Amino acid sequence: MPLLPPVSDEAAPAEVAAVYADIRATRGTEFINNFWRVLANDPALLARTWTDLKAVMGEGTLDPLTKELIYVAVSITNGCDYCIASHSTAAKARGMTPEMLMELVSVVGMANETNRLVTGLQVPVDDAFMGPFQK
Amino acid sequence: MPLLPPVSDEAAPAEVAAVYADIRATRGTEFINNFWRVLANDPALLARTWTDLKAVMGEGTLDPLTKELIYVAVSITNGCDYCIASHSTAAKARGMTPEMLMELVSVVGMANETNRLVTGLQVPVDDAFMGPFQK
Amino acid sequence: MPLLPPVSDEAAPAEVAAVYADIRATRGTEFINNFWRVLANDPALLARTWTDLKAVMGEGTLDPLTKELIYVAVSITNGCDYCIASHSTAAKARGMTPEMLMELVSVVGMANETNRLVTGLQVPVDDAFMGPFQK
Amino acid sequence: MPLLPPVSDEAAPAEVAAVYADIRATRGTEFINNFWRVLANDPALLARTWTDLKAVMGEGTLDPLTKELIYVAVSITNGCDYCIASHSTAAKARGMTPEMLMELVSVVGMANETNRLVTGLQVPVDDAFMGPFQK
Amino acid sequence: MPLLPPVSDEAAPAEVAAVYADIRATRGTEFINNFWRVLANDPALLARTWTDLKAVMGEGTLDPLTKELIYVAVSITNGCDYCIASHSTAAKARGMTPEMLMELVSVVGMANETNRLVTGLQVPVDDAFMGPFQK
Amino acid sequence: MPLLPPVSDEAAPAEVAAVYADIRATRGTEFINNFWRVLANDPALLARTWTDLKAVMGEGTLDPLTKELIYVAVSITNGCDYCIASHSTAAKARGMTPEMLMELVSVVGMANETNRLVTGLQVPVDDAFMGPFQK
Repeated sequence: MPLLPPVSDEAAPAEVAAVYADIRATRGTEFINNFWRVLANDPALLARTWTDLKAVMGEGTLDPLTKELIYVAVSITNGCDYCIASHSTAAKARGMTPEMLMELVSVVGMANETNRLVTGLQVPVDDAFMGPFQK
Repeated sequence: MPLLPPVSDEAAPAEVAAVYADIRATRGTEFINNFWRVLANDPALLARTWTDLKAVMGEGTLDPLTKELIYVAVSITNGCDYCIASHSTAAKARGMTPEMLMELVSVVGMANETNRLVTGLQVPVDDAFMGPFQK
Repeated sequence: MPLLPPVSDEAAPAEVAAVYADIRATRGTEFINNFWRVLANDPALLARTWTDLKAVMGEGTLDPLTKELIYVAVSITNGCDYCIASHSTAAKARGMTPEMLMELVSVVGMANETNRLVTGLQVPVDDAFMGPFQK
Repeated sequence: MPLLPPVSDEAAPAEVAAVYADIRATRGTEFINNFWRVLANDPALLARTWTDLKAVMGEGTLDPLTKELIYVAVSITNGCDYCIASHSTAAKARGMTPEMLMELVSVVGMANETNRLVTGLQVPVDDAFMGPFQK
Repeated sequence: MPLLPPVSDEAAPAEVAAVYADIRATRGTEFINNFWRVLANDPALLARTWTDLKAVMGEGTLDPLTKELIYVAVSITNGCDYCIASHSTAAKARGMTPEMLMELVSVVGMANETNRLVTGLQVPVDDAFMGPFQK
Repeated sequence: MPLLPPVSDEAAPAEVAAVYADIRATRGTEFINNFWRVLANDPALLARTWTDLKAVMGEGTLDPLTKELIYVAVSITNGCDYCIASHSTAAKARGMTPEMLMELVSVVGMANETNRLVTGLQVPVDDAFMGPFQK
């Protein structure tokens, strides 16, 4: 059970209603998921998070599917079940196939393994890897 | 300082030398970075890790650059400095620009933020996000 | 389901019963929550943890509410659902309002984001921030 | 070494210069720390992060010192050395004494310990702790 | 609900069926747990993970029970409920008693606490601890 | 640089001096490592941590070497460089060989990998693994 109740459309103050309307318009669906409804207990936090998410996850030098895959990879590493479910759903909507999901999970598993091999053995960074964009 | 010393070419037993040779052939460079040289203190671990990495990070339904970006995202979340340096260097070699790196870091930051907003408020998973490939 | 069963009042050996009694006296309630009852499978661990918690979480140069907020912040970052639920309940009992909870979650989210921006870009520590109490 | 170079005042484009100016005005110092200078490689990320940080860390129902203590607690749990150094310096400027720092660290250590006791034994959440603000 | 459905014996392609057969032969039981059945959506990942696990977790200079205890310790620290449940069951089958489990959890809790005390205070590594096998 | 200075023998108040004396007597060496000297800025925290550590890490149903291996495994997973260095040195003093260290690191790597495979695919716990000591 969430610490605070989700905010329904009926109970939403104006600032929240405006964000809900923009989520609906941007996504082309009436559905507002629990994350936004619980976040709405703090209208300023809701508005800021939605604005940032739109700015970060849209088209850029990385395409939206790649960004969703990265989002899922982080969420797996942090063990956030909600985020894995919601962002893998979003990734599927942007074209992720089951094969791509399994490859994503393979890379995440491998990275988590080698991260700990490196850390466990205290491997020093090679000069060749220092400041890759400063050479 | 690493817990165990890196294994030089001269000191490498046959199983290690074979992996070093395959790394050189696969990558087209004489350079063997510290990760492999320290891992070589356990030849079986070295061989297994290299074999797995080649299998996981090669061309698939996800391209090698996307896989490196995911690798960096996990390494940032785990705080593995060596892995961030080595895999961002690898990503750059596969085409990552400074702009792409900054976008990657933005997504990783945003995901880490919202992972904790979700967890902190104990938001329950929406039915719409359950088992995205089971519908 | 817990790995080991909770220890009821009836089944509690003397060392456990003494801790249960002190929890009840200290908190002014008959209720003993699951954490202590499962920990009671190791009476020495139970006694040590309760003694430490009383010492750490009481009045000091930081007040008990601030300490509970810090406890919740750590529990969110670690993704410990039980700890988020129990310590946010404790924080509410010490005066945390819904507004304060939302601000706490905002700070925790922001810190998790910037922690990763810093780590992802490998930002070196400024001299001005070195050893703040050694100047 | 950071992945990308810090952006000097001389090299700063207009959007970055505007943020630098606001940091200086807000903090009443000429000093701009490395975090902002490296983030400036992505002017939009720099501007967004600074705007968010000002909104989140200012006076609210929680005071700025409490927010800095929470920031440090998260940074310790994530192992972000830069963030520990910079935000403990900020906390000291807002009144944190060495005694308060040691208490903060004690609470963070204790929370990390009990988080794992709970998780390791798979303790189920008591009904009494469910949805503390929904009763 | 898992993101992808478990693969039943009936639906298993040849490569998956071969791994299932080897799991059954190695463990001396007909039971195949959910982890392998969901992993089977990617036969190559399934085969690689099973091969690696057999190599890593068998008899070596560390005995299989010690290895399972280490596995549980990592799983607790990462908050992986499935892994805690499955590997503590495996550890019990190799001789772990309730007393040993409670001691394991105590050590994991203590390590998580002192890890954060060290990190929070930014304690520098003593020369005496550098490269323990390089002296 | 540590946030607070290490406490020398000369500057140690009575409560700290007593702990230093017990560390020396228990370990049979004059050497006091940085962890205790920095912790000594809070004599109560120092005394409590030392007392707990002696209780947890001594002989029990698990032997001291196994406990040190578990300590190192947690420290690797948390990325605590100081703790990896100090507890692998302690493990070596209790009999850990380079071969055992490499096996430990292999298990830690493997556990971190499969933890994320499980989490990434949201694998549900099998009934057979529920409450292993409650059957």
